[in-house]
Amino acid sequence: MTQHDHEPLEPRAVSRRRLLGTVGAAGLAVGATGGAVASAAVRDEPPTALTSLGATRVPFHGTHQAGILTPQQAHGHLAAFDLAPGAGRKQAAALLRRWSATARELMEGEAQGGGRDTGIALDAGPSSLTVTFGFGRAFFSRTGLTDQLPTELAPLPEFSADALDKDRSDGELWVQIGANDALVAFHALRALQREAGETAKLRWQMNGFNRSPGATSHPMTVRNLMGQVDGSNNPKPGEKDFDARVFVPASGTPAWMAHGSYAVVRRIRMLLDDWDKKSLAEQERVIGRRKSDGAPLTGGSEDTEPDLDKRSADGSPVIAADAHVRVTSPDTNGGAAMLRRPFSYHDGFRDDGAPDAGLLFIAWQADPLRGFVPVQRKLDRGDALSRFTRHEASALFAVPGGPGKGEYVGQRLLEG
Amino acid sequence: MTQHDHEPLEPRAVSRRRLLGTVGAAGLAVGATGGAVASAAVRDEPPTALTSLGATRVPFHGTHQAGILTPQQAHGHLAAFDLAPGAGRKQAAALLRRWSATARELMEGEAQGGGRDTGIALDAGPSSLTVTFGFGRAFFSRTGLTDQLPTELAPLPEFSADALDKDRSDGELWVQIGANDALVAFHALRALQREAGETAKLRWQMNGFNRSPGATSHPMTVRNLMGQVDGSNNPKPGEKDFDARVFVPASGTPAWMAHGSYAVVRRIRMLLDDWDKKSLAEQERVIGRRKSDGAPLTGGSEDTEPDLDKRSADGSPVIAADAHVRVTSPDTNGGAAMLRRPFSYHDGFRDDGAPDAGLLFIAWQADPLRGFVPVQRKLDRGDALSRFTRHEASALFAVPGGPGKGEYVGQRLLEG
Repeated sequence: MTQHDHEPLEPRAVSRRRLLGTVGAAGLAVGATGGAVASAAVRDEPPTALTSLGATRVPFHGTHQAGILTPQQAHGHLAAFDLAPGAGRKQAAALLRRWSATARELMEGEAQGGGRDTGIALDAGPSSLTVTFGFGRAFFSRTGLTDQLPTELAPLPEFSADALDKDRSDGELWVQIGANDALVAFHALRALQREAGETAKLRWQMNGFNRSPGATSHPMTVRNLMGQVDGSNNPKPGEKDFDARVFVPASGTPAWMAHGSYAVVRRIRMLLDDWDKKSLAEQERVIGRRKSDGAPLTGGSEDTEPDLDKRSADGSPVIAADAHVRVTSPDTNGGAAMLRRPFSYHDGFRDDGAPDAGLLFIAWQADPLRGFVPVQRKLDRGDALSRFTRHEASALFAVPGGPGKGEYVGQRLLEG
Repeated sequence: MTQHDHEPLEPRAVSRRRLLGTVGAAGLAVGATGGAVASAAVRDEPPTALTSLGATRVPFHGTHQAGILTPQQAHGHLAAFDLAPGAGRKQAAALLRRWSATARELMEGEAQGGGRDTGIALDAGPSSLTVTFGFGRAFFSRTGLTDQLPTELAPLPEFSADALDKDRSDGELWVQIGANDALVAFHALRALQREAGETAKLRWQMNGFNRSPGATSHPMTVRNLMGQVDGSNNPKPGEKDFDARVFVPASGTPAWMAHGSYAVVRRIRMLLDDWDKKSLAEQERVIGRRKSDGAPLTGGSEDTEPDLDKRSADGSPVIAADAHVRVTSPDTNGGAAMLRRPFSYHDGFRDDGAPDAGLLFIAWQADPLRGFVPVQRKLDRGDALSRFTRHEASALFAVPGGPGKGEYVGQRLLEG
C-alpha cells in the first residue's frame, strides 16, 4: 500500500516549539513508525503516545489526502459548500488554493497566514488535525467540467428506508475536519469558512466525535452510541485487496482522481430509546457480535471471521439470517468492501424527547458501486439493525489524491 | 479550604482494572496530589498526566460535590428536568437516590448496576467523569418544601441585553456532567435520563466542550471561541476569601445547603462573524487583555492584576473605561467574585449562516447577589464585550454540599 511520508519539521514550525515541549520527540517518533500509524487507522491500535496528543502532526502532502488512513480523531466537523452565483471554475480554483494553503498551515501547527488568524487554537499543538477536500456531482456542471465527471459519482440509488433531508444532503464542495482537540477543530472550520468568503456558501454542517485517545488502554476500539464495537470488519492496510478497494489506482480514470477515493457520507440517526429497551441477548442477535468485545457470536475475538455456516444444536444459524454482520459480510456481497471511518454525533434532543444522536457514517472506497451501494441494497432488504436506524442525510464526494509539494488539492482537475 | 478526599479504590473497581492498565498508579498519584488537583481547577495547571486520561477518577463523596473544583473537562452535558405531573417529594427523593447511586457507579468506572448498562462506555476508564446535581426554585413549591427555599434562589433580575428562551431556561432539577471522553459523558447522560423514567421529564439539554488535556504543554489555559483566555481573574483556592465566595459555610442557612454553592448557568451566544472582523488591537481593547497570553494591557502575565489607574502618554486609560476586564473587576464591584467554570458550545449554524456557538457560562458562588448579579448589572450598563454576545438562556440552581458515604445528594433537604 501507499502511505503518507512523514515530513521532517520545517523551519517555520520552530516558533511553535516553545509551546510544544514534546514536538521534537513526537515528530521523530511519528517518523520512525509511519507505517504503524497508517495501519492503526484501520487496526484500531493506540495511534499516539498520549504525551504527544497535542504535538502530533499529520502531513498535508502525500499520496493520499489526510483524514482517510489517519487514526480516527476525537472531534470532527463535516461541511458542504455550494459555489455562490457567479462563481465558476476560476473562482473555485482560487478557493481550493486558499483552502489548501490554510489547511497546510493549520495541520503543521502554525497560525493562519496573513494576520487573519482568529486565535482560537493559540497555544495548542496541531493535535492530529486533518483537513480533507472533496467534490460533489453538481460541482462539475457548475464549473464546466462535466467531461471530467467520474462515472463513480453517479447519484446513489434511493433506498426504501431513506428519509433524507435534502437541505443536509449533497453539496458541491466537501470539507472533512478531524482533530484531537475541540478548539483546534473549530478553529480550522472557522478559518476555512472565512476563506470561502463570497465564493462559496455553507450548505450544511455537522459535528461529530469519537473516543479520546487514552480514555482506554485497551486497543483503540471504536464504539458507537449503541455501545457496539464499530468497524471490526474494515479492510486493513496490507491486506491483498486493500488499495484496490479503497483507492483509485494510479492509472485510474479520470486521471485527476489517481490515488483518490470516493466518500459516502450518511447521517444515520439511532433510535436509542428503542434500542436500549432490548436485552443484551437481543442486541447481540441483531448485530451478530458480542457487545463486550465485538467478537462474532460464533466465537473468537474481534478480528475472527464470523462463521456464517455455524449452526446451534437445534439447527438454527448461530448468526441469524438478518444479523447485521451477515448482511454486511463481503462473503455475501461479492467481495464488496469499504473503509468505514465514522464519527458519532449528538445534537441534543428532538421535540419528541428522543435523542438526536447517531452516526456520521463515512465510507471510503475506490468505487461506490463495489462498496457502499451493494451493501446498502442488502441492508435495505432485510437487516435487523435497520429497524433501529434512520438515514436522514446522504452525500457522495470525489476526493482526489493527496497534493504534492506546492500543489493544491484539486489542481489536477481545475487546471488539468 | 475544604477539599475532596480521594478515596482508595474499592474492591468493586477490580473488574475494571484489566482494561485500565494505569489505574493503580494513577489512583495513587491522584491520592498523593489531591490538593494540587483541586487547586488546578482554578489555577489552570495540567490536571492529569496524559497517560492517566482514562484512568483518572474523581470521588463522588466529599465535602463539596464534584464538578465545581474539578479541572474543567473536555466534554460536558447540561440537562434540566421538571418533575412529571403527580410526582412529589417522595418520588423526587427516590429519583435523587437512584441518580446518586448511578453517578457514584459511573464516576468510579463501573457499569451501571442492575444489568441496565447501555455499554456505551465499555472498556473506557472513568476519564474524570463528574456528575453534579442542583435544585431550581420551582422544585420547592412542587415538593412542598417552600420552607426550605434559600433566599439566594430568588429569581435573577432581568437584564436589558437578555434575549432569553424560556424553553431553555430554568428547570426544577439540574444535572451537570463532565468527562474527558465523549462516550463516557454521553453514557452518563443516557443513564441518568433513563433513571428519571416517569418521575422527571427533560426540560432542556446542552452540550459543551473544552480543550483536551494534552493539546498544549503550556499550563492548561482555557480559551473560548473568541480566542480569548477565559477565567484568568477567577478566585483561586487558598486565597483568603475563596471559600467564603464560592461555598455556603458549614453554619449557613438553610442547613441542607452547608458546603453547597449556587450555580448561575447562561447560554451566551457569541457573534463570531462580527468579532472576527475586528482587528487584534480592537479585540484586545474590548477585553483589556492581550489575546496571546491573557496578560492585562497594563503589562505582566495572565496572573498579574490589571492596573486600572494606569494611563497612556496622552492621558487616556490603558484599560478602556468599558473594557471587559475593568467592568468585571472585583475592585469595581465591591469585591463581588464568582468561580467561572464554563464549557464552549457549537450547535452548527443558524438559518442566517452565523455559527450557533458561544459559551455555556457556569458561575459558582455562595450568594448570587454577591457574585453574578452585581457583575452582570454592570456589564449590562456598558461593557464593550456585550456588543458581541447574546444571553439566550438563563438558570439558577442550589447545589448542595457533597454526599457522605451512604448518603444521596439532596438527602438533607428531602429527608430533613
